[in-house]
Amino acid sequence: MHDSTVRGFASDNYAGIHPEVLAAIAAANDGHQVAYGNDVYTARLGEVIRAEFGEKAEVFPVFNGTGANVVALTALLPRWGSVVTTTTAHIHNDEGGAPEKVAGLKLFVVPTPDGKLTPELLATEAWGMDDEHRAEPAAVSITQSTELGTLYTPEEVRALADAAHAAGLAVHMDGARIWNAAAALGVPFREFTTDAGVDVLSFGGTKIGALGVEAVVVLNPDRVSDIARLRKTTMQLASKMRFLSAQLLALFDGVGIRAATHANEMAQKLRAALESRIANGSIHGLSFSQPTQSNAVFAVLPNTAADRIRERFRFYDWDRAAGQVRWMTAFDTTEADIEAFVAAIREELARDEASAQ
Amino acid sequence: MHDSTVRGFASDNYAGIHPEVLAAIAAANDGHQVAYGNDVYTARLGEVIRAEFGEKAEVFPVFNGTGANVVALTALLPRWGSVVTTTTAHIHNDEGGAPEKVAGLKLFVVPTPDGKLTPELLATEAWGMDDEHRAEPAAVSITQSTELGTLYTPEEVRALADAAHAAGLAVHMDGARIWNAAAALGVPFREFTTDAGVDVLSFGGTKIGALGVEAVVVLNPDRVSDIARLRKTTMQLASKMRFLSAQLLALFDGVGIRAATHANEMAQKLRAALESRIANGSIHGLSFSQPTQSNAVFAVLPNTAADRIRERFRFYDWDRAAGQVRWMTAFDTTEADIEAFVAAIREELARDEASAQ
Amino acid sequence: MHDSTVRGFASDNYAGIHPEVLAAIAAANDGHQVAYGNDVYTARLGEVIRAEFGEKAEVFPVFNGTGANVVALTALLPRWGSVVTTTTAHIHNDEGGAPEKVAGLKLFVVPTPDGKLTPELLATEAWGMDDEHRAEPAAVSITQSTELGTLYTPEEVRALADAAHAAGLAVHMDGARIWNAAAALGVPFREFTTDAGVDVLSFGGTKIGALGVEAVVVLNPDRVSDIARLRKTTMQLASKMRFLSAQLLALFDGVGIRAATHANEMAQKLRAALESRIANGSIHGLSFSQPTQSNAVFAVLPNTAADRIRERFRFYDWDRAAGQVRWMTAFDTTEADIEAFVAAIREELARDEASAQ
Amino acid sequence: MHDSTVRGFASDNYAGIHPEVLAAIAAANDGHQVAYGNDVYTARLGEVIRAEFGEKAEVFPVFNGTGANVVALTALLPRWGSVVTTTTAHIHNDEGGAPEKVAGLKLFVVPTPDGKLTPELLATEAWGMDDEHRAEPAAVSITQSTELGTLYTPEEVRALADAAHAAGLAVHMDGARIWNAAAALGVPFREFTTDAGVDVLSFGGTKIGALGVEAVVVLNPDRVSDIARLRKTTMQLASKMRFLSAQLLALFDGVGIRAATHANEMAQKLRAALESRIANGSIHGLSFSQPTQSNAVFAVLPNTAADRIRERFRFYDWDRAAGQVRWMTAFDTTEADIEAFVAAIREELARDEASAQ
Repeated sequence: MHDSTVRGFASDNYAGIHPEVLAAIAAANDGHQVAYGNDVYTARLGEVIRAEFGEKAEVFPVFNGTGANVVALTALLPRWGSVVTTTTAHIHNDEGGAPEKVAGLKLFVVPTPDGKLTPELLATEAWGMDDEHRAEPAAVSITQSTELGTLYTPEEVRALADAAHAAGLAVHMDGARIWNAAAALGVPFREFTTDAGVDVLSFGGTKIGALGVEAVVVLNPDRVSDIARLRKTTMQLASKMRFLSAQLLALFDGVGIRAATHANEMAQKLRAALESRIANGSIHGLSFSQPTQSNAVFAVLPNTAADRIRERFRFYDWDRAAGQVRWMTAFDTTEADIEAFVAAIREELARDEASAQ
Repeated sequence: MHDSTVRGFASDNYAGIHPEVLAAIAAANDGHQVAYGNDVYTARLGEVIRAEFGEKAEVFPVFNGTGANVVALTALLPRWGSVVTTTTAHIHNDEGGAPEKVAGLKLFVVPTPDGKLTPELLATEAWGMDDEHRAEPAAVSITQSTELGTLYTPEEVRALADAAHAAGLAVHMDGARIWNAAAALGVPFREFTTDAGVDVLSFGGTKIGALGVEAVVVLNPDRVSDIARLRKTTMQLASKMRFLSAQLLALFDGVGIRAATHANEMAQKLRAALESRIANGSIHGLSFSQPTQSNAVFAVLPNTAADRIRERFRFYDWDRAAGQVRWMTAFDTTEADIEAFVAAIREELARDEASAQ
Repeated sequence: MHDSTVRGFASDNYAGIHPEVLAAIAAANDGHQVAYGNDVYTARLGEVIRAEFGEKAEVFPVFNGTGANVVALTALLPRWGSVVTTTTAHIHNDEGGAPEKVAGLKLFVVPTPDGKLTPELLATEAWGMDDEHRAEPAAVSITQSTELGTLYTPEEVRALADAAHAAGLAVHMDGARIWNAAAALGVPFREFTTDAGVDVLSFGGTKIGALGVEAVVVLNPDRVSDIARLRKTTMQLASKMRFLSAQLLALFDGVGIRAATHANEMAQKLRAALESRIANGSIHGLSFSQPTQSNAVFAVLPNTAADRIRERFRFYDWDRAAGQVRWMTAFDTTEADIEAFVAAIREELARDEASAQ
Repeated sequence: MHDSTVRGFASDNYAGIHPEVLAAIAAANDGHQVAYGNDVYTARLGEVIRAEFGEKAEVFPVFNGTGANVVALTALLPRWGSVVTTTTAHIHNDEGGAPEKVAGLKLFVVPTPDGKLTPELLATEAWGMDDEHRAEPAAVSITQSTELGTLYTPEEVRALADAAHAAGLAVHMDGARIWNAAAALGVPFREFTTDAGVDVLSFGGTKIGALGVEAVVVLNPDRVSDIARLRKTTMQLASKMRFLSAQLLALFDGVGIRAATHANEMAQKLRAALESRIANGSIHGLSFSQPTQSNAVFAVLPNTAADRIRERFRFYDWDRAAGQVRWMTAFDTTEADIEAFVAAIREELARDEASAQ
């Protein structure tokens, strides 16, 4: 029943488990381990996290990205607090209202051209802290890499974190695709997280090749407490935790950065292949709405062509009215996938053009 | 670092992944599959569930038992509703307040001798439906097998469901250990669920040998709607759903019932071995506080002996003031485990007795 | 349309506004005052509260008793916390699930014979603080006078508060009928609140003669913070606050204690009148299930008689299966009301008896 | 202590109780009435509401505007639903996050030039109803008169309601200042509510002269149910309801429309007086950022002058960076107030100008 020849560019979570992650799960499947995180794999994960993020860092594996974001943000806010973020943020558009519904998180959202907040954009909503009538802005949430495939440089994170801290807000980073960011920036995690002023991080695993695991990584424990209690209370505590931790350990043991480097390269290849065909005139009617800085290509093309291409390779509309689509690459995207997809794009755009004449 | 010689009777979730479940995960790890449940494994799971629970049954895999319970109960209640359950219920004692905190679920709890509700016990809290001052009792939640290791017969479930429905309440079953119940009762699932009047079921997978998966199984769709939306909103929607569904498929493909039969037998052996030694006078100071009907043995012994035994085999106190402990067996409990544990119990109780003289 | 000859014993909130409270509202209705509590009446109320409850006391007027309880308890709990209270508590039975639904408050409830918690009863649920699986018991809530019309002595409050504090729990008192308690005990408020170890108090106004006002009174500010923010966030902040504060000021200016003394006396008269008739044989079939220590009489009589009496004077069943009813007196209950009611009770019980012969 | 000579333009809730409303409260203060809404005043209010809004209309008095909005919107949404509103909406900026924190309401906010939504603006967020990842937009909330003092015509409400209904959204109107809107439009309530397609209304009383009362008015009962239960559960149910209903009855008995007409006229006079002085050159440095269509004047002037004027007459900054302030009139604003305020504005602006030269 499982047709493994179907390929696509819909999302990095259409891909399966990276073989080395699966092997790590199997290797951890031996005998008894204390449940709920008091096991040797989770202990080892703690060491790895401290090595990567600094001695004060703490890690709390959870089930999914929404869970990581909600636990992290709840821990940063007083009960009357609010979060400043972008209009394109995953926590605003893609989590089914869980931040509001599960945890009462109030969001103030700011439009951005590229999915990135700046100190100036932050200031438009980070005010009124002493006004009991306004939910107190107490944290800012940024996404790295962003929902639009763009990147914050370490300096940009630092500038935003400084502005946030100066205004009394804590800094949260949604790192659902943090491996792609690290690979693209070519610097250690801590350079654009701990050292850049991020207080709490939602650390991604699933999209880069895990079966299913994310983590709340606390970088500044002075800002939060009792993540363990909040994780339980928000239903994100796994009983057989060793298997979540084992997945993250495999990612840190080389899989993550290799997988992300590959996925990013595939996105660059896709973009380059299409741009060269646009340049040489073999593709018409296609343009790009965002720079390709990680593993996403945002393109603009006629809906008619897009719908026909979609029958051959799955992908999502981003803004149908604007003809904007999103193409994601994954750890298992192949050069053959890219070539076939480029060919399909060329063919269907040409068909559009032909019928228009 | 992983010492696989450590064994115990603390919980069925100290055990790992059943090898056949792990194999099923590996087998599903091929190519791309649509994320969030629109994959072939989840489709197949739907068929299996209909075969097991009836043609109207629907299945929604989730991450953990608390998630299954909260999604299921929320779907059964109006916003002003409440749940009648036992004082020993997992939703009351062991879920960190998630039902209240995530979903605003109000619980009315009833003391029971054996973890089981009866129509008479239900009636003590199932009243006041027309009184706006009292959160309307709109569902009853029972656990099968119970937190005390006891079982409802199909007739008992039916009697309770009839009473609940007559009073206007829907019926939820927390089946975190439903495989143990099915194995112990020796009847198909539907005989004590669908056919006995259960409306929605939290179906367990993790404790019997999955890496981590439970499911909301809707037996009476007329009572609920939009579980899919609630699952998302309560952060229980997995992106790589195929791997959750594959685990459940493996359980239904023979693993679950075999594993449960084995675990139950191990509990019976443990109980029988201890009882025979009590009978022949080789063990003193030990008694049992509940019948052993599934994979749990509830025993009463001096705290001093219990603490020394615990250094050799992990297990939990249930009620330390009463000297009550809980011993759980799992799919991977061996006869050798039982023998060694019985020997340890005998030795430490004897040591207590010796020091008392 | 308003038939002012209808009288009854249903609830102290069937009565209207005490004339002196209404006069105080009218007196405050002059010119402009800053909204939301920054007015001269609220400032004056702060002074009065400090005089009554001690220099550290703070007051936050709110709309109703549920609001006071929810704001107070939320302020006392961490997000993963729970409250230990009685099975008869207003927060459990009579607030429509608001504690759970508005604020995610988890309740652990303890059965009591008389609506009063003791250190021993508290201990049955005040455990497991370090167990992430159990919502941490972080506050105890008692009601003074209780929902059963009984009273805690100052010594009893102190003993319970000491036990609670020793176990790490804060102490909340639901004082919806605190004026009746103060009048019955004959001691200043602070003797059974601040000085007895209560941390936060829900202070009642409506039932004793206000149009509508209660207050959160913080006695131990070290335990809580930002009640003002929580009050706003839970929708209990009045814009024209001066009129809420003016009502409370009138109560403290003599109205409250006089009204409560009167209501308590009326309850005593009712009870005494009935007991003397029982003693002299002119009333049969009536008994009492609780001592009458404030403004409530809990009586047991046949449902048939109760229903006929109810047609003449409104009151509520408390436990219909047990034939238990509740009769409340108010600031405006008259001796004529008592006499007429006693006569009605005698007549209807006699009719029952006659028809039984 | 109460200095009644202090006057200002800060908010219509700095004013007190309209004398006729206070008289109505006093008139209702007689004998006993059933609590919680089963009284003759609330019954009469139901009749009045049906006469004003149509035979299907239902009314539920509540304590405050946030309460009305949260109860109304909760009733319109499924648990996974969201609300589309403006960035300037009271529910977004001024309710302390109560919609999110009390009821899990998710807001999608749209920037507007004048506080008014249009079908085109609505469409920017009213999409994705079938996407489980996005909280389903299920209601739109508009404010009449708006937070910027502007008005929707009946035709504009109708156009928006038609667009909302066509997209599957229900229509909520926040009518905290609905009396000002009705007076300004010069049409019956139902012309811009029931007949224009509004489904549920938050009906204001406090700002126009009540002590404190708002109401949820259901215009289309097919869209909602059990407001009574939701009102209780969200802590907005008053025990001595007769006094809330009596206030609303007084407003409908002529007070409301007279008070609003007066307040609107005072705003027009203020605006006209200032504009004529700007025109004749006696005032410099003042402009207006919104039309004055109800009882608010939004003006732009130097912060320095504004701060000095504020020492004489209270008012709030609206956007300090832009030098924008809000001046509100109330039922008790006098012509003398206007004259004194205009004089103060002229003097302080002149002082600024003098010091600038």
